[in-house]
Amino acid sequence: MRSHYCGQLNETQVDQEVTLCGWVHRRRDHGGVIFLDMRDRDGIAQVVVDPDTPEAFATADRARNEFVLRIRGRIRLRPEGTQNPNMPTGMIEVLAKQVEVLNTAATPPFQLDEHGKVGEEVRLKYRYIDLRRPEMIDKLRLRSRISHSVRAFLEGQGFLDIETPILTRATPEGARDYLVPSRTHEGHFFALPQSPQLFKQLLMVSGFDRYYQIAKCFRDEDLRADRQPEFTQIDIEASFVEEDDVMAITERMVRQLFSEVLDVKLPDFPRMPYAEAMQRYGSDKPDLRIPLELVDVDDLMKEVDFKVFSGPANADDGRVAALKVTGGARLSRKEIDEYTKFVGIYGARGLAWIKVNERAKGIEGLQSPIVKFMEGIVESLLDRVGAEDGDIIFFGADKARIVNEAIGALRVKLGGDLDLYTAEWAPLWVVDFPMFEADDAGRLSALHHPFTAPSCTPDELKANPAAALSRAYDMVLNGTELGGGSIRIHDRDMQRQVFEVLGINDAEAEEKFGFLLDALQFGAPPHGGLAFGLDRLVMLMTGARTIREVIAFPKTQSAACLMTDAPGEVSADQLKDLNIRLRQKAKVPTSEE
Amino acid sequence: MRSHYCGQLNETQVDQEVTLCGWVHRRRDHGGVIFLDMRDRDGIAQVVVDPDTPEAFATADRARNEFVLRIRGRIRLRPEGTQNPNMPTGMIEVLAKQVEVLNTAATPPFQLDEHGKVGEEVRLKYRYIDLRRPEMIDKLRLRSRISHSVRAFLEGQGFLDIETPILTRATPEGARDYLVPSRTHEGHFFALPQSPQLFKQLLMVSGFDRYYQIAKCFRDEDLRADRQPEFTQIDIEASFVEEDDVMAITERMVRQLFSEVLDVKLPDFPRMPYAEAMQRYGSDKPDLRIPLELVDVDDLMKEVDFKVFSGPANADDGRVAALKVTGGARLSRKEIDEYTKFVGIYGARGLAWIKVNERAKGIEGLQSPIVKFMEGIVESLLDRVGAEDGDIIFFGADKARIVNEAIGALRVKLGGDLDLYTAEWAPLWVVDFPMFEADDAGRLSALHHPFTAPSCTPDELKANPAAALSRAYDMVLNGTELGGGSIRIHDRDMQRQVFEVLGINDAEAEEKFGFLLDALQFGAPPHGGLAFGLDRLVMLMTGARTIREVIAFPKTQSAACLMTDAPGEVSADQLKDLNIRLRQKAKVPTSEE
Repeated sequence: MRSHYCGQLNETQVDQEVTLCGWVHRRRDHGGVIFLDMRDRDGIAQVVVDPDTPEAFATADRARNEFVLRIRGRIRLRPEGTQNPNMPTGMIEVLAKQVEVLNTAATPPFQLDEHGKVGEEVRLKYRYIDLRRPEMIDKLRLRSRISHSVRAFLEGQGFLDIETPILTRATPEGARDYLVPSRTHEGHFFALPQSPQLFKQLLMVSGFDRYYQIAKCFRDEDLRADRQPEFTQIDIEASFVEEDDVMAITERMVRQLFSEVLDVKLPDFPRMPYAEAMQRYGSDKPDLRIPLELVDVDDLMKEVDFKVFSGPANADDGRVAALKVTGGARLSRKEIDEYTKFVGIYGARGLAWIKVNERAKGIEGLQSPIVKFMEGIVESLLDRVGAEDGDIIFFGADKARIVNEAIGALRVKLGGDLDLYTAEWAPLWVVDFPMFEADDAGRLSALHHPFTAPSCTPDELKANPAAALSRAYDMVLNGTELGGGSIRIHDRDMQRQVFEVLGINDAEAEEKFGFLLDALQFGAPPHGGLAFGLDRLVMLMTGARTIREVIAFPKTQSAACLMTDAPGEVSADQLKDLNIRLRQKAKVPTSEE
Repeated sequence: MRSHYCGQLNETQVDQEVTLCGWVHRRRDHGGVIFLDMRDRDGIAQVVVDPDTPEAFATADRARNEFVLRIRGRIRLRPEGTQNPNMPTGMIEVLAKQVEVLNTAATPPFQLDEHGKVGEEVRLKYRYIDLRRPEMIDKLRLRSRISHSVRAFLEGQGFLDIETPILTRATPEGARDYLVPSRTHEGHFFALPQSPQLFKQLLMVSGFDRYYQIAKCFRDEDLRADRQPEFTQIDIEASFVEEDDVMAITERMVRQLFSEVLDVKLPDFPRMPYAEAMQRYGSDKPDLRIPLELVDVDDLMKEVDFKVFSGPANADDGRVAALKVTGGARLSRKEIDEYTKFVGIYGARGLAWIKVNERAKGIEGLQSPIVKFMEGIVESLLDRVGAEDGDIIFFGADKARIVNEAIGALRVKLGGDLDLYTAEWAPLWVVDFPMFEADDAGRLSALHHPFTAPSCTPDELKANPAAALSRAYDMVLNGTELGGGSIRIHDRDMQRQVFEVLGINDAEAEEKFGFLLDALQFGAPPHGGLAFGLDRLVMLMTGARTIREVIAFPKTQSAACLMTDAPGEVSADQLKDLNIRLRQKAKVPTSEE
């Protein structure tokens, strides 16, 4: 129906006859002539309809915004002075010979140019209109290119694209499963997978050697923090590999992706042990674009006459950390109050600080509510953090977990607020994770998942599980965890030992993971892999602010689709077929109730 | 860990040192030497371990079938007389220097070579072992190549890969939906999509212009006829297109796929109207490899003194059709009885036949229980079907629907039984489908789906819906429907008219498809598309006998996974979270009941 996309037109085509199909993006009447900005997925082209072509003019005259038109015309240079060098097609226009209305359009609930004036709810309800915005089309187009680039790389490396089931058994990632009642097996339920973890391990047991899948995964979580009930994972697994193999190949994949899609050459990926990341950045996904670091000052604070500091400094699970911000002395009292509130979100009970106005003056040159307690150690402190005139030093003092979270988050926030970034892209690998984390009652749970191999023997694991490190690795970019993976357990005894540490007894292990334990005894190869969160990767690469911008039809925070009105009510007969009923009897009247 | 895959070794590498990782496929001890057939996904290589390397020999000595080994050794030519030209690596063997056990294996529930001796149930329970069979790996590898080829073609044509939701609202394909109870919206349910139909249409309304997705779809049907509850669809949609555009591009896609993956050049795709397909082949997906055709003989039979024929010949909805099978006179009475039973499955109440022994002898030269009724017309009949000596003619006489189904199926069965195929691949397009089909009560339902555009105006549709043809097209290959699609309705009034014919009133249309009707009024472009069943395509291309052979982790006919034991039971707390309970109170004890 068309000869060109609107966005493809340029001055090399002058005098060519073209046929465009698209939407009226804007319409202006000027000097007895109608100007139509015609839009399609590739861009916008200006069409001029003048009264010399009376039929075309009459048709154009009744066209309104978002009408769908087909236009035949000739490309010509725009007259001197009306050219728009900011627009790819801004040097030319199309003089229309024929204008055909392919479909009319009622006045849309919002104009694309004015989408900011309506709330996100309206835009989600009319998602098909919101998706017309060129920024939205561009983001989803980039997403398509990202998937394609990843696939091309992995296929080239001999990875096979293998689909794993969506209707399956509960998986052990720990989040809540979405359940699907079975009609044929009364009282039984499928679960939607939180990841293809077990299936990809079984594919390794089968000898597929290199597997990948861009897979839908599901978690029925409370959707804080910009999450979606269904999300997409680039899922990778390989046999006869060690950490270095998986990290090398996936790092190459991401480098190639950034180079192909964004023309960005990523810098080297340093490797950082988990313990170091926590100590220096208070985070297992440090944003290395920001040159701030947490500095331990526990030793200095043990004797100070200030319980807030000396308490944690002397406690086993305490930490006192300083964060020096170059030039931060210019922060106002109000700004510091805001940051104090901010760290409160993470459980910090306050935010101590020292402004270094004139270091040469000693304690007189400092400004701080707490400096009076520091007299004996202040020089050592300033030396340790390398403070200079004009800096501010913030302090966290509490349980180490709270200090890490609060001051780690403060570090990231200051990096953004003060625009401290030293690089556009800062990737790294975080390695040497602990196998387990303890809750307040001391109960251990898997930091990654229970199929992650520890880097010790089963006996060592048994003797001191809390000290065991895992063979896991996370790829982090700009403070976002892009992907995580590990070498898996391929030994049945080791798997049982890990289950035991996690308090999963043999009967429960058999019931839940019997097929995996079986598989491990029939010749399972050493194997490992990694999974990337595609949505988050696309977000980072497109600069989107929410995950909803990179998903064609996202759900709201309450897991609803405002466009289709899902989830919806269903009939009593359907429920009966599925052998279930609602708890609230009133909701769906049935013949029985 | 390895230098080569086992299957990659050949005689050009003689004297090279290689490292292999894989499974012991077979082990033989012969002349004091151990022979290990080592298997990986690429093939099998013979490894020789002799007692001169005592450590390697001792390790190899304790290796059993399916042990996972790493072997370092040197490639050498096999001794004269022990070469195996039927095996890609059959000219060489690897003399082992080092043998390392990466994992042991318990005796598997069946040996790969003897998989035929155990039932499919056992193989599904131990799917990860069954998938080790080279045929299974090859099928899934081909599936991966098929997906890749399709994607590469579509990306090259500017189609964008866009994901649509899995947790969505009930779709209108007519089969039963899988439902997912919502935790956050009490008493409400998501449905798993039977296809991305509405979403892809909305993407066209948004202006994405060319969309594709390899999408998981779900139908909670009774799994007769080799179906799966979840299946995979190559889903395509484009804007500003007509039938020819969609058919041309998808035909090129399939041609390129067959050429790339199977090195097969498909013949031309003829187009055949639905009515012609039914008349000549009794099927809307005719297998054109078989040179048999149904021939109408109603006119000849109107007057015969044989009610079985004259009845349908004179009835409006009747049909009398002849199927001549060249050389079929050699069929035994027993075989004919079998075919009579066979057509009975499709509702035929018998199977009349005439054997043409010696046509020159007139009626004397024919053998048939019914020829006595045919005296006056037998010559015309034989002429019409072009019967020659040695042929058999079968007859179907009943309601046209039954004749088409029964004799259409008989045609396909005879084609297979008598190996009548005249080609390896016979594709075609079936076009000009009716918009609607009537049930026995005369109620119309959509032959494709209610978003298919008719080839008439809304007024014509209203005046005579039963006569309306649609703008749908099916791609058929070797009697299998590979894909189906249509130009869609992009006009709101036409959509309402179709809903009206289907007995969907405005309120119901608004409730179920309000968002689509809305979208159609805000500038919907003309659009259309097509969806291929990937599983069936892979089946055809790999020569698999059941769909379960081309799916890594399939379900049984009762929609269960024997490996993971899904669907499974869930806890009362989980159900409570989801605001549902089981109908059978006894099943899951809860505190309340």
